[in-house]
Amino acid sequence: MEKELYFSLEEYKERLNKVKKSMNEKEIEVLIVTDPANMNYITGFDGWSFYVHQCLIVMIDQDQPIWVGRGMDGNAARLTTWLDEENIKPYSDDYVHSLIKHPMDFVSDVIKERGYSGKTIGTEMDTHYFTARCQERLEYNLPKAKFKDATSLVNWVKVIKSDTEIDCIKKAARIVENAMQAAYDTIDVGVRECDAAANVYHAQISGTSEYGGDYTAIAPLMPAGIRTSTPHLCWTDKTYKEGETVLVEIAGVYKRYHCPMSRTIILREPSQKVKDLSSAVAEGIAETLAMVRPGVTAEEVERAWVNSISKRGFVKESRVGYSFGLNYPPDWGERTISLRDGDKTVLQPNMTLHFMPGIWLDDYGVDISEPIRITETGVETLTKYPRKLLVK
Amino acid sequence: MEKELYFSLEEYKERLNKVKKSMNEKEIEVLIVTDPANMNYITGFDGWSFYVHQCLIVMIDQDQPIWVGRGMDGNAARLTTWLDEENIKPYSDDYVHSLIKHPMDFVSDVIKERGYSGKTIGTEMDTHYFTARCQERLEYNLPKAKFKDATSLVNWVKVIKSDTEIDCIKKAARIVENAMQAAYDTIDVGVRECDAAANVYHAQISGTSEYGGDYTAIAPLMPAGIRTSTPHLCWTDKTYKEGETVLVEIAGVYKRYHCPMSRTIILREPSQKVKDLSSAVAEGIAETLAMVRPGVTAEEVERAWVNSISKRGFVKESRVGYSFGLNYPPDWGERTISLRDGDKTVLQPNMTLHFMPGIWLDDYGVDISEPIRITETGVETLTKYPRKLLVK
Repeated sequence: MEKELYFSLEEYKERLNKVKKSMNEKEIEVLIVTDPANMNYITGFDGWSFYVHQCLIVMIDQDQPIWVGRGMDGNAARLTTWLDEENIKPYSDDYVHSLIKHPMDFVSDVIKERGYSGKTIGTEMDTHYFTARCQERLEYNLPKAKFKDATSLVNWVKVIKSDTEIDCIKKAARIVENAMQAAYDTIDVGVRECDAAANVYHAQISGTSEYGGDYTAIAPLMPAGIRTSTPHLCWTDKTYKEGETVLVEIAGVYKRYHCPMSRTIILREPSQKVKDLSSAVAEGIAETLAMVRPGVTAEEVERAWVNSISKRGFVKESRVGYSFGLNYPPDWGERTISLRDGDKTVLQPNMTLHFMPGIWLDDYGVDISEPIRITETGVETLTKYPRKLLVK
Repeated sequence: MEKELYFSLEEYKERLNKVKKSMNEKEIEVLIVTDPANMNYITGFDGWSFYVHQCLIVMIDQDQPIWVGRGMDGNAARLTTWLDEENIKPYSDDYVHSLIKHPMDFVSDVIKERGYSGKTIGTEMDTHYFTARCQERLEYNLPKAKFKDATSLVNWVKVIKSDTEIDCIKKAARIVENAMQAAYDTIDVGVRECDAAANVYHAQISGTSEYGGDYTAIAPLMPAGIRTSTPHLCWTDKTYKEGETVLVEIAGVYKRYHCPMSRTIILREPSQKVKDLSSAVAEGIAETLAMVRPGVTAEEVERAWVNSISKRGFVKESRVGYSFGLNYPPDWGERTISLRDGDKTVLQPNMTLHFMPGIWLDDYGVDISEPIRITETGVETLTKYPRKLLVK
């Protein structure tokens, strides 16, 4: 079966080496990687198979990790990863949603067979698809092993992107611009929200004439009217009303690399309070981005933002951004850097952050964001889209 | 804030009572519900907020559960659930992706405040999004509690649908028919796979002229060519080639209720081996559905299928179907009934099953399915779409 690798074998091996270096620092000899984005990062593995248990077993002294997954997904591993056949270990279908057998029993057997059952094993304890039962089965089956929490170990390796990864994100940026334009072109008084969302999806997936788009890790978030008082609602099948505000938080995706962006669309002339909030947000973004460069910390970025909006009498209580990149549902954020008080991460070149200082008040909200890349000397705005309240 | 409830308050309360009945049978006094579909089932809660920790705390002797989630999602709970304000408990944003504080610490505090810290607490130990860390924090914070595994407790309550739920699924069935037609109309030699997927998405979300669609719990699975040897790959941006087979496994969704369907599309005249496989599948479906009715067990359905295809020399190693309904990413399956050997669940009226006997061989596959409802006397096919290999 011919391999379908997007990145070079060298790049995958370099990624694996970085992961092993971090394992070494944390005194972890075996790492169980269950986050689908982390599995993809190390091996290329792709497929919507993360609804059943699957993982990589990364052994610090082995050249290749072992892929474990459902039998029918074995061919996906053969097609999309650089792993040799001996390191692709599919389990039989009676492990799926069984009350008797658990896929982590199979993983434990593989670890035993390879002679790693007495090692220090890291697990991604707080990662979406690594359930309490997964940890319990591993601990039960491998009583001689020592377990350590390795949540976000691979995520932190991913925070500085290679130039080829940045290229993917820039392709995703073109797609999200098209998708936002589709939203702006379609959303209008009397149009059903679902028809606008359908056009956004079409633009996200169709991509550009040169390359296609992939599914996004979060559905288009586009609450309207009273629903803008909370950020994570999607569309309904009601029609947009005159005077409504629509928040549009979407991404473009290329080869599973995201570029997110948010804008606020208002149907007809905005009220003074919405205008005031919008201009505070737009000015705050400009003021804040002017100070972003390598060496600045994540919390300093948030502080600059807070200083800017507090001059206008606004308060933002949640973080104002996060690291993004390669991801699978349910989140395109990397769960590493947060732009908020207490995060002392020093920004470095080729980190990619979604600076997203949305402000939601009790009955309205405004959301304008910029996906950015830290450059050698400052910051690059990845999308080129008017940074303002969009009036229609 | 005006509530946006889709089902009647009576229906939600009936659902809660059924959950409490099951808790009582299992001697569970407090149930922590983290599966977003189960949260929605009991309270109506909706929002793409399941990428951060959130839950319901169901207390067996209280009239309402408590919703716990991220601060900014509190208004989503106020809008979409029937809960009173005192039972909506948002946590502050510094709990999100923090190394110091965990949302389950907050949940533990709520359980203590309400006086339930010494009770028997059930958790959904093997449910997506309920991580190993969640369980660890609860056990650490509530040393007097007794913990029990309550994975799928609510899922099993959900398997028999109310008539209003069936109505949602039937609306979703109309949407998936439209989406499959969009796939068939678009997929052709020279068309980019991503453009076909974009049209499928458009049909799924736009819905019908009477009602709109919602996002699906699984992206359109539509591998082509060699990629049909594994079922969970999506599209690429390559163009379809003459002679290729395309597997299309998609759903329609209405109010988060799914109706899934699969078909195989072949570009130009199929080879004899594909024709043979397709007719074996179509005949096997017809033969099998003829024996499905209340009182038959899940494993008997699979056995009928195996008998039918083995006459033609084919073998299917994985389960041939599962229960479906209300769901969120990453899976539209309910993780309860599986049509496979060993599953002795007795079929009952208003269960909904995706009978999906796809057969994937090493270098090609055929996939034709039927979403069905068990009726009082037999079976109802929920979609009306030609049950055959689609030739183009």
